[in-house]
Amino acid sequence: MNKGENGEIDPDFVARLVDYLEFDEGRVQHLFEKNYLARNWGKHDYLFRFDKEISRIERGTVLYEKDDSFEVIMGFPKIRRAMVLDPTLKKHFSGLEKVTVEEKMNGYNVRVANVKGEILAITRSGYVCPYTTERAKEKLDLRFFDDFPELVLYGEMLGPDNPYVPKEIYGIESVEFYIFDIREKNSGNPLSIARKHEILEKYDFLQVRSFGKISLKTAAEEIAKIIRTLGEKEHEGVVIKDPEMVLAPLKYTSSQSNCSDLRHAFKFYNEAGRDYMLSRIVREGFQTVEWDENEADFKKRFMQLGESILNPLRESIRSVKNGQRLYEEAKIRVKDLKTAAEFENYLKRLGIDTIFEEPQPIGNEYLIIIKKINKSTNDKTQAIWEGEVW
Amino acid sequence: MNKGENGEIDPDFVARLVDYLEFDEGRVQHLFEKNYLARNWGKHDYLFRFDKEISRIERGTVLYEKDDSFEVIMGFPKIRRAMVLDPTLKKHFSGLEKVTVEEKMNGYNVRVANVKGEILAITRSGYVCPYTTERAKEKLDLRFFDDFPELVLYGEMLGPDNPYVPKEIYGIESVEFYIFDIREKNSGNPLSIARKHEILEKYDFLQVRSFGKISLKTAAEEIAKIIRTLGEKEHEGVVIKDPEMVLAPLKYTSSQSNCSDLRHAFKFYNEAGRDYMLSRIVREGFQTVEWDENEADFKKRFMQLGESILNPLRESIRSVKNGQRLYEEAKIRVKDLKTAAEFENYLKRLGIDTIFEEPQPIGNEYLIIIKKINKSTNDKTQAIWEGEVW
Repeated sequence: MNKGENGEIDPDFVARLVDYLEFDEGRVQHLFEKNYLARNWGKHDYLFRFDKEISRIERGTVLYEKDDSFEVIMGFPKIRRAMVLDPTLKKHFSGLEKVTVEEKMNGYNVRVANVKGEILAITRSGYVCPYTTERAKEKLDLRFFDDFPELVLYGEMLGPDNPYVPKEIYGIESVEFYIFDIREKNSGNPLSIARKHEILEKYDFLQVRSFGKISLKTAAEEIAKIIRTLGEKEHEGVVIKDPEMVLAPLKYTSSQSNCSDLRHAFKFYNEAGRDYMLSRIVREGFQTVEWDENEADFKKRFMQLGESILNPLRESIRSVKNGQRLYEEAKIRVKDLKTAAEFENYLKRLGIDTIFEEPQPIGNEYLIIIKKINKSTNDKTQAIWEGEVW
Repeated sequence: MNKGENGEIDPDFVARLVDYLEFDEGRVQHLFEKNYLARNWGKHDYLFRFDKEISRIERGTVLYEKDDSFEVIMGFPKIRRAMVLDPTLKKHFSGLEKVTVEEKMNGYNVRVANVKGEILAITRSGYVCPYTTERAKEKLDLRFFDDFPELVLYGEMLGPDNPYVPKEIYGIESVEFYIFDIREKNSGNPLSIARKHEILEKYDFLQVRSFGKISLKTAAEEIAKIIRTLGEKEHEGVVIKDPEMVLAPLKYTSSQSNCSDLRHAFKFYNEAGRDYMLSRIVREGFQTVEWDENEADFKKRFMQLGESILNPLRESIRSVKNGQRLYEEAKIRVKDLKTAAEFENYLKRLGIDTIFEEPQPIGNEYLIIIKKINKSTNDKTQAIWEGEVW
């Protein structure tokens, strides 16, 4: 879907961008040609997104002209993973007394910002999602964006009415926006955790659960306990942060989250990334050794692993054998049916093959079931059942 | 190790090869430049191997000049896999009344042939293995090669004294050469199974186990039974063949063989191919659905799978934590210590990092333990234990 998106780019615009980015002109031209810097379509076509990490600019960063200059909304910084808690935390956060531990919640990443006077919800990849934008406007106290036009909310869209990562585990009725960072436009600098809490409380914004500050000395043990408790509820894990947000955060996840990822990956075994699968399996290996599990716990872990892999695989293979098509079901809840139409068009542009069912009224909104077709796994499995060799 | 292997290639040789292969000169030059056609080193430097599949020439095919022309030993044809037995067998072998089922034994592939008067053992990739050559000369009735200079034995080197795939499961004391195909030089055409048996029996050659001819109609069921029995003994699986060897064979393997592959792959998780791992897991999914397993059998299967993945992973991670280096142990048994020295040099040229221990006399031969170092998994695991992020 990226091919040719940029069309003709105005040479004056390129010249202004060359000045702003301090890249040479050839480099900027190259970014456009390769669609590494790609123009949005439709009514937000003044927005450009970085489709690739360039120098210190994260993939998903968004850029647009404003008041004779440019404004930038930096992408989500990639959070590195601790494969073992000890000694990784001590090494990474060396010099700190305490670290802040927040829950890593399982939804989809979205930035909400005031973009030239309009509130937009921008996905991790840098697209303006019409559904998320409608929801964000509905759910958030918009005065924040007038009071702090230079700040961007970085958060997670959570809940069952979620077209990307539907989850029932948080007790959310539809969807809610949980914030984990506030960052400045242009620099992408984050506010300290104290300042973030202060602002979020003032506007009654929902925020990811905090486990508070923990002494670095005992962090590995305490986080292991937190992770076990989160895991029991199928929650994902934690992000460990420098309270001042100077050092980069680290993440660490529960076994249940690894297995849940694997269940999804093996359901659609022919589209899921091989590295994605392997990394989640390898995490299980490090966790069982770091936690020095006995044979009973180890057996529980490998049974869980085996089942998380083979059960969804069996389900998919069986479904196709029985003539069913493989799909993922998700749902959205919209105020305006126009949003649903825009969202359907948006997914099409992203190359996602979907079927939108008839809207059902629910309160003063509409619920719409979406089926996402997994063509690759479907076709591969069907071919095998028709006698094709591997 | 392939870089620059070819050095200067004589232009007259290139011209003769152009005539023989009926490729144009530019193409032949390209094959040499890319080392797709690579020259052997040392005393067999008159041998060239195809390091890539070119037109209808299999990778591993070997070529050399002989009597004013060339002689070719075709590589091992890739055997396609049936992911499900039914309908794959019926579709693939349609038109046949019966198929021949042979055991797929788990060792390493080797061709033995008379090459310009010398008996050589050539690996799947097309290298002359000094160890296998010594063993083949020791184990085989060499009169065959005088009687049939135009034929090549295609087989499997099996047993514990095996530097590549050591296995105790066949009750072999050291190593033995089990033959599965006899093919003609140049054309690569296989003899019919009847003719193959006749010749192999005449020279008392060992051959892979045959389950005889099976009606195509009942083949799926009968092979499923054979596979279950083989699996119980940790044997790998079967190759299903057209008795006349006109249609290409198919293979099918046991769950135990998949799990055994996975055990090895996850022990060295950072060097094993992602596709290798995934394919073995997916086979388990198709087998459980095709065999319509009940929940008890399914549970056994996913436990087996989970353990085959997580146990070797745990072992490796734990070993490195305890300061041990990860390696694979294998052994060889040689008549002449010169063979061991040549073999050590050979593995070095192939880029395999090994430690050869002191030879121990055994009968009139020598046993030598070889440790193959798995640097990538070792270094990755160690870095994680030192606090590196993923």
